[in-house]
Amino acid sequence: MKLLDIYAKLKKDINYIEKELERSIDVEHPMLREASLHLLKAGGKRIRPVFVLLGAKFGTYDLEQVKHVAVPLELIHMATLVHDDVIDDANTRRGQLTVRSKWDNRIAMYTGDYIFAKALNIVTKLSNPLIHQIMSKAIVQVCIGEMEQIRFFFNSEQSIRDYLLRIKRKTALLIAISCQLGAVAAGASEKAARQLYIFGYNVGMAFQVRDDLLDLFGTEKEIGKPPGNDIKQGNITIPVIFALQNEKLKPELLRELKVIQDTDGQTDVNPFLNIVRQSEGIARSEAMASKYIDKAIAALQSLPDIQAKKDLISIAHFIGNRSY
Amino acid sequence: MKLLDIYAKLKKDINYIEKELERSIDVEHPMLREASLHLLKAGGKRIRPVFVLLGAKFGTYDLEQVKHVAVPLELIHMATLVHDDVIDDANTRRGQLTVRSKWDNRIAMYTGDYIFAKALNIVTKLSNPLIHQIMSKAIVQVCIGEMEQIRFFFNSEQSIRDYLLRIKRKTALLIAISCQLGAVAAGASEKAARQLYIFGYNVGMAFQVRDDLLDLFGTEKEIGKPPGNDIKQGNITIPVIFALQNEKLKPELLRELKVIQDTDGQTDVNPFLNIVRQSEGIARSEAMASKYIDKAIAALQSLPDIQAKKDLISIAHFIGNRSY
Repeated sequence: MKLLDIYAKLKKDINYIEKELERSIDVEHPMLREASLHLLKAGGKRIRPVFVLLGAKFGTYDLEQVKHVAVPLELIHMATLVHDDVIDDANTRRGQLTVRSKWDNRIAMYTGDYIFAKALNIVTKLSNPLIHQIMSKAIVQVCIGEMEQIRFFFNSEQSIRDYLLRIKRKTALLIAISCQLGAVAAGASEKAARQLYIFGYNVGMAFQVRDDLLDLFGTEKEIGKPPGNDIKQGNITIPVIFALQNEKLKPELLRELKVIQDTDGQTDVNPFLNIVRQSEGIARSEAMASKYIDKAIAALQSLPDIQAKKDLISIAHFIGNRSY
Repeated sequence: MKLLDIYAKLKKDINYIEKELERSIDVEHPMLREASLHLLKAGGKRIRPVFVLLGAKFGTYDLEQVKHVAVPLELIHMATLVHDDVIDDANTRRGQLTVRSKWDNRIAMYTGDYIFAKALNIVTKLSNPLIHQIMSKAIVQVCIGEMEQIRFFFNSEQSIRDYLLRIKRKTALLIAISCQLGAVAAGASEKAARQLYIFGYNVGMAFQVRDDLLDLFGTEKEIGKPPGNDIKQGNITIPVIFALQNEKLKPELLRELKVIQDTDGQTDVNPFLNIVRQSEGIARSEAMASKYIDKAIAALQSLPDIQAKKDLISIAHFIGNRSY
């Protein structure tokens, strides 16, 4: 089954979540509303709500309950995106900050804060303290992950472990708790919730590794921005870490990396990308993603063979091969 | 009784809260830890925790419970301060953004996010859903208040009502729920919690009006920054709104305001301040603050005459005359 088929099957519920997302940010404040809606309308795969819905199928599926988890998780994801953009804006407009760009940054930052607060406000409609604890703990880790990313910018000495811990915080955790909280909110068994967490964690790790590969190979159309965006920002991803382990390639990579850092990313990064592309870093990263997908699917083995399980497996396979 | 005496009496508990605040941001991340600690060590009056503690005296006072409200409320206040600073940084360094200043902004923004998330994580230790609801609802309003402030920058046509709604969101709400949640966390009666909310709301309104007056009259030593900071940013406060109602002063004020706006605050604001200082806006603002203090104290009337009530009244009087 293809991913589109799964979305088609869940279409009614996803549309309902979409409406709830819109409703949640329907604030009587023109700028705030405009900024939030703009962000929402920009779309996204809504992969977190989809995981929540599928996780909930392992319990007593009640959309009216489950939405109080699905909507906040997508909002939290959106809030982190806005805050990442604030920083990006500050870069690209550097040296020519207009009043308008100043205002945009303010608006973007407070919009992020607002969406984040709104997310937490919605989840309080569920009285299960476990849900609040899981969610707030994960958000703390996401914040640390964002900071970690900055700390390791242009750090060519970082280990595979540094990278893995970082993407766990930055990406995998929120996907893991999406699967888990869907189950918890639907009153599924503790075991189901735990296994779904493990599934989501591994899918999330694979997702980020694939994302990092895409940034090396994707066309501008596929990834919505020119390739090499990660390295321009100083974000050293797993294919690069693997490539740096090749003693022959390392000196050349470090030389290019220094140019990128010294020019603050305002240089042609293709020489750097080409070295990585030709290294064994690609195959090793692909193998790593596949291993995570295998682990994700294995985590579901002991769960009942309902349709949602098959759908989760299909999504996992899709993410393992993603090229969108 | 003087404010210092009240602090002295609560000293042991305030010190404990201070320790818990430190502990709460003790994260294994060098930059994050440094930034958060710097902020914490910068001090502050910890007025929100003090209100939480005093509110809790109307119920069964248990510091181990109440700290789960006192610490988050102070952290939330801190988080909003950091995010305000991000924007200020972006202004003052405009046109000469160094890599270091870029990093500071990132760090400041994610530090704010982290402190905010940490606050919400701590409050999940209390299982009473009412507490979560009250807190998250207030935070949403605080975010809207921050945006409102931006929207009304340099808007000389705003009404008293616009101003009051804005400072309610920006300042009064968090103080109101500090008093209220102290009571709720200590299992005080619904009536006590409600009256304490009303008390806190009115004290918070008076606090902000006084703060706005201080920005006109305070010395740099008293307020930690040169006077006139509000108008430099375009923040039109209540003494200015009152002064603008004087048809004789209005043209001159508008002229000065335009200069300030056109130079983006990089001009001498004393001519503007002097007009406001000589207007009836000062006396009217002072009367407004006094009226709020009266209402605050009246709200406590029906509550039992315990020491905490006397302390709250003393603090209210102090805020009504504040010049710190």
